[in-house]
Amino acid sequence: MRAVDIIIRKRDKKELTKAEIEFFIQGVTQNTIPDYQASAWAMAVLLNGMTAQETTHLTLAMANSGDILDLSKIAPIVVDKHSSGGVGDKTSLVVAPLVAACGLPVGKMSGRGLGFSGGTLDKMESIPGYRVDLSEDEFMQQLRQIGIVLTGQTGDLAPADGILYALRDVTGTVPSIPLIASSIMSKKIAAGAQAIVLDVKLGYGAFMKDLEHAKQLATLMVEIGNLSGRKVRALLSDMNQPLGKAVGNAIELKEAIETLHDGGPHDFREHCFTVAAHMLVLGEKAANLDAARKLAEETIRDGKAWEKFAQLVKAQKGDLSFIENPDQLPSGSIEDMVMAEQDGYLSMLNAQMIGEAAVILGAGREKKGAAIDLGVGFHLEHKVGEQVAKGDVLIKIFANERDKLSAAKAKLMEGIAIQSEKCAQLPLFYGVI
Amino acid sequence: MRAVDIIIRKRDKKELTKAEIEFFIQGVTQNTIPDYQASAWAMAVLLNGMTAQETTHLTLAMANSGDILDLSKIAPIVVDKHSSGGVGDKTSLVVAPLVAACGLPVGKMSGRGLGFSGGTLDKMESIPGYRVDLSEDEFMQQLRQIGIVLTGQTGDLAPADGILYALRDVTGTVPSIPLIASSIMSKKIAAGAQAIVLDVKLGYGAFMKDLEHAKQLATLMVEIGNLSGRKVRALLSDMNQPLGKAVGNAIELKEAIETLHDGGPHDFREHCFTVAAHMLVLGEKAANLDAARKLAEETIRDGKAWEKFAQLVKAQKGDLSFIENPDQLPSGSIEDMVMAEQDGYLSMLNAQMIGEAAVILGAGREKKGAAIDLGVGFHLEHKVGEQVAKGDVLIKIFANERDKLSAAKAKLMEGIAIQSEKCAQLPLFYGVI
Repeated sequence: MRAVDIIIRKRDKKELTKAEIEFFIQGVTQNTIPDYQASAWAMAVLLNGMTAQETTHLTLAMANSGDILDLSKIAPIVVDKHSSGGVGDKTSLVVAPLVAACGLPVGKMSGRGLGFSGGTLDKMESIPGYRVDLSEDEFMQQLRQIGIVLTGQTGDLAPADGILYALRDVTGTVPSIPLIASSIMSKKIAAGAQAIVLDVKLGYGAFMKDLEHAKQLATLMVEIGNLSGRKVRALLSDMNQPLGKAVGNAIELKEAIETLHDGGPHDFREHCFTVAAHMLVLGEKAANLDAARKLAEETIRDGKAWEKFAQLVKAQKGDLSFIENPDQLPSGSIEDMVMAEQDGYLSMLNAQMIGEAAVILGAGREKKGAAIDLGVGFHLEHKVGEQVAKGDVLIKIFANERDKLSAAKAKLMEGIAIQSEKCAQLPLFYGVI
Repeated sequence: MRAVDIIIRKRDKKELTKAEIEFFIQGVTQNTIPDYQASAWAMAVLLNGMTAQETTHLTLAMANSGDILDLSKIAPIVVDKHSSGGVGDKTSLVVAPLVAACGLPVGKMSGRGLGFSGGTLDKMESIPGYRVDLSEDEFMQQLRQIGIVLTGQTGDLAPADGILYALRDVTGTVPSIPLIASSIMSKKIAAGAQAIVLDVKLGYGAFMKDLEHAKQLATLMVEIGNLSGRKVRALLSDMNQPLGKAVGNAIELKEAIETLHDGGPHDFREHCFTVAAHMLVLGEKAANLDAARKLAEETIRDGKAWEKFAQLVKAQKGDLSFIENPDQLPSGSIEDMVMAEQDGYLSMLNAQMIGEAAVILGAGREKKGAAIDLGVGFHLEHKVGEQVAKGDVLIKIFANERDKLSAAKAKLMEGIAIQSEKCAQLPLFYGVI
């Protein structure tokens, strides 16, 4: 078998076989297939597509390119969740301890923020001492002991995906639904969970801009899950405006803590309860969504979710005093605000623009590995559909540098629109697959 | 400007600007754009195409990536010809001295054979001593002194094309009409000729299998020529069966020598006169094709073309005794033949199969740089459309090794068909653009 012939078959719109895909992915992992062949192949896949069967072969080949965690030793079902990324999405911080507190183990490997999308690890690192670099042994041991882990990727999971992703990033081959689906699912499968809830975002601040593409991605990932023996549910959720009210790192952690104390913004609470309910149903802790939701609400109300969160932070060496007194968490020294310039209804809070403004402020990074400022961020005082009067504060800004503040503020203004006619709130969800 | 954005624009079917193409090709040449970006871009070009304007920008950017010969110091018009490659195509060996003998300087850089396509340099190297490695200075001096050069590429012509071609070869991105057209034309433009006759082959033994694609390629190359100030004519010629009767290296040289002595197979003579006539018209040595053809025929008949060929061989240090007594040229020590297995009309002499059989015999190479056997080859005793009787010799084989002979013979048989119904001869040309 020759790599060039596999590229040619995909170029000519043929369906690749399992053997061809395995040969190609093995070659990419072992560096016997050079990156110039991998990138030409990725472009052919992007432009000519792949069937669900091909994408499943690709997913499993990438998962098999490294270690595969076996969590069945720990519990009959361990659940995981994955968000396709967005702005203000601190869901894992609430949902992981909430579900774990219901007795369903959650072993979650998260990522860092990149571009306008935030990252769970960065938010958790706002807690001094919190470790995100657990080894595979530590991961397994903690999951067994307290039923919850929230860390970075352990060991060598799906290395082929890492190699391909780095290449796709610089060759214009990121936005391919089969390549995105297989990238996400290969890591989830390698991470060992038997049940996975996927939160596929759509809108301005999401990778998928419209419902049609988000549905395609969600459907494909559910098909891959089913074809590889995992229980998978995908939610289609809104990312036209940020989720909740806090955007940043420490500021999002604070909002998550409020929510774990049965507070927090309405939309974010709703989002967390819905995601948690699906996880509980998949993990067989509740017979149906209604029962699952009641269980989730009760687990927040009685403080068990919060206790589990504290247990998690303690296990991963975070300083508990910072989550017990969130005012100690870093916060920008310069406060400013964006005000409504007219009376009317807030019709746009463009999540991408707000995410980009957060990057300008220092809360996010343009390039992998760049340093970020954990204390800076925004607090949205209103959400889309709300009535506002001229002079009302729309967004509070917490900054540490004046020049970044003014650039970020200018970017924020681009993302805001107020109209005189009444406008509807944005839905939280567009469907479940 | 970033390479990835240029790839993305082509991926999204946008027309690239001159500045973008120049930036990309400069980056490829200087290795600031890595090969994985170049190959992803090439796949996007192959699948999404390029306009004539884009292809012209690409051609000139590649030509400008290295030296550009200025032949205007030598003569008002220097002509060149280019064949898109085929089997039995020894046209340059006859046409270059023929046209030069008519007073029109011909400065030609040729290539070696690869795969089933033969190469002019290999054929000329059948003459002991013949140099194909002239320097740029030697090229210019010889062209000035005797009005003819037939050598390999001098200096650093279109290095970007060399880099891209090597990459295309291993990434399934060869068969793109804009990439083929710009590859050919960039080298022709860098080689300095002001007038170029392109011989675009089509059929079994050509890169272009059908008239439609050959026309597209020819039209695009003529457009590029016009847009870059060159006089260009493209002939569409048959390559379903080999050109002439000899296939190999020394054996093709012998056929060219016969033709220069006013002999040679009818189809090959016709082909040479037509190509030469177009060169003479473009080079303003004849007012029209009829006059040009008469001049070409006369120049063969009176021995001037032959004299010019001898002058060429002498100038490039070839041993004249071998062209004066072609029987001294190498010839396979084992002779065999393929005979007609039935009465009827020869309906196929598949040029690709015959070319592949020649590679098996050792006359051609699978990989660049491989050694070849100059003495082996075939002589076609009949051409498509001719009536044959069972037992007639169809092809004489000249081999040096028994095992290669039998493998080559088997391959030859695959490429031959005889039918009982009368069948037409193949046309020599399908048009002029």
